[in-house]
Amino acid sequence: MEPFELYILGCGSANPTKTHKPACQVLSTRGKNFMIDCGEGTQMRLARLGLSMKRIGHIFISHTHGDHCMGLPGLICTMSLLGRTSQLHIHAPQQLEPFLQTAMQTFCPDLDFQVLFHPVDTRLHQLIHEDNSIEVWSLPLRHRVPCCGYLFREKPGLPHIRRDMIDMYEIPVSQINNIKAGMDWIQPDGTVVPNDRLVTPPSPSRSFAYCSDTTYLPPLAELVRGVDLLFHESTYPQDNVLRARQTFHSTSAEAAQIARMAQVRRLCIGHYSARIKDEAALLREAQAIFPNTILANEGLKIDI
Amino acid sequence: MEPFELYILGCGSANPTKTHKPACQVLSTRGKNFMIDCGEGTQMRLARLGLSMKRIGHIFISHTHGDHCMGLPGLICTMSLLGRTSQLHIHAPQQLEPFLQTAMQTFCPDLDFQVLFHPVDTRLHQLIHEDNSIEVWSLPLRHRVPCCGYLFREKPGLPHIRRDMIDMYEIPVSQINNIKAGMDWIQPDGTVVPNDRLVTPPSPSRSFAYCSDTTYLPPLAELVRGVDLLFHESTYPQDNVLRARQTFHSTSAEAAQIARMAQVRRLCIGHYSARIKDEAALLREAQAIFPNTILANEGLKIDI
Repeated sequence: MEPFELYILGCGSANPTKTHKPACQVLSTRGKNFMIDCGEGTQMRLARLGLSMKRIGHIFISHTHGDHCMGLPGLICTMSLLGRTSQLHIHAPQQLEPFLQTAMQTFCPDLDFQVLFHPVDTRLHQLIHEDNSIEVWSLPLRHRVPCCGYLFREKPGLPHIRRDMIDMYEIPVSQINNIKAGMDWIQPDGTVVPNDRLVTPPSPSRSFAYCSDTTYLPPLAELVRGVDLLFHESTYPQDNVLRARQTFHSTSAEAAQIARMAQVRRLCIGHYSARIKDEAALLREAQAIFPNTILANEGLKIDI
Repeated sequence: MEPFELYILGCGSANPTKTHKPACQVLSTRGKNFMIDCGEGTQMRLARLGLSMKRIGHIFISHTHGDHCMGLPGLICTMSLLGRTSQLHIHAPQQLEPFLQTAMQTFCPDLDFQVLFHPVDTRLHQLIHEDNSIEVWSLPLRHRVPCCGYLFREKPGLPHIRRDMIDMYEIPVSQINNIKAGMDWIQPDGTVVPNDRLVTPPSPSRSFAYCSDTTYLPPLAELVRGVDLLFHESTYPQDNVLRARQTFHSTSAEAAQIARMAQVRRLCIGHYSARIKDEAALLREAQAIFPNTILANEGLKIDI
């Protein structure tokens, strides 16, 4: 099965600490690295994790708070220094564009590659990107500025050919694509071999939802229903719920509540406030509501 | 004697590596932290070194290449989150202002403190800042964009009072400032005690010059003559001198040549190209010309 792996590059919040860095994640699949948020220092952490910059074709930014996007200018300049020529697509709320344009005019006015800015309407749940294997949907969130999450969903794959059956019926290679597409095989004597004898079902489509930053938002559960992995911000513990309300953030218990309502397979929490000393307490709080929860950490790789 | 300490926060060049970070140094003296350049990730490295953000009143930017100033927006936002109210002065080439303004409008439009931008004419050697104990001068450099270094020089101090003489002649406390200012002491019987019996000479004024980025520029030596510490960029070894010329950088040998011509006390080299594998070779090359040379490194503290 093709890898479908999430790397956590930063899971701190606005005020970085000695352990936690500004937001950034990379979803790596089929040779493509999709970047989600790009806080300050992202390019250094990419290098440390050995993740290829070349394979980053699309970057998805949740909102225009600095801890989610200040790493973009440095990343783009370094891509240029490394000789990039292929297009880079940036999907982000419209509010980011002036900063991005000014940064590029100041630091790298003569790029050898195009940076294409795609404004995202953070109020809508809609398809914002697709290629032959994946779809990316926006997820409206509620924060102090326009903000959305992103849902990555593999497209249904084709069935797997049964090598043994192909050999047994001596089916020519030229017919493989037809059989993958669902056709039966008609033998030279006219006998029909039904398609389901020749293939096994396609690999299940995997899905990942990134939801940061947001206040507790129950309608979100419907949009992320059943995903394999939900990353949901958990800036505070439940006993700081008032602070969470004031700053439009969520608590661990609330993140777990969304995961439970949405019946996701696994929950990862992060975006820890710099005041958090005991992340294990956040984990216990979430697991009491949704047991299959893990803590984000810099350098963590999750096979989805 | 008051501390006069330099901290190296980053001494890499445009393309950061696993070991070397984008440019930043802090000169710490008399409770004030003067920041010089502010590459991406500076705020994280300040925290790691335990250097106070509050004590940073003035930031001096050499030029508008990203590795020398992309850390400013994040630093300013975090200062705001930490409740700063005092003014922040940024001295930089005029070309930086649009980026800085757009970044602040995007990420922190409602600061509780003033950020005052002071354009620096990089073609001139002139006094650009002074307070009661220090002067800061610009040093014209030659790079691909307008660029200058900065020279920090302590103002001459007052002589030190000789406690033993004060006691012996029973000089009242009210006269101490006059004696520091150079006056003799007249005893009740009319005898004159000359000033030089009452004081020892002031502590020597210390000086530090930061020169990065620049091509080899012999006239610079006159401007940094006799400084206690010269930081001079040394992006390449001498066998890459053509590459240094093309990119308007210097070699180790050239940095050492400037130090020798200027008869400085000590030379620190850095701003290493990402291609440098063997920094010890850079050091040997420089020391062959100017023995009192050290290598910059992240976290290094130099007592000047």
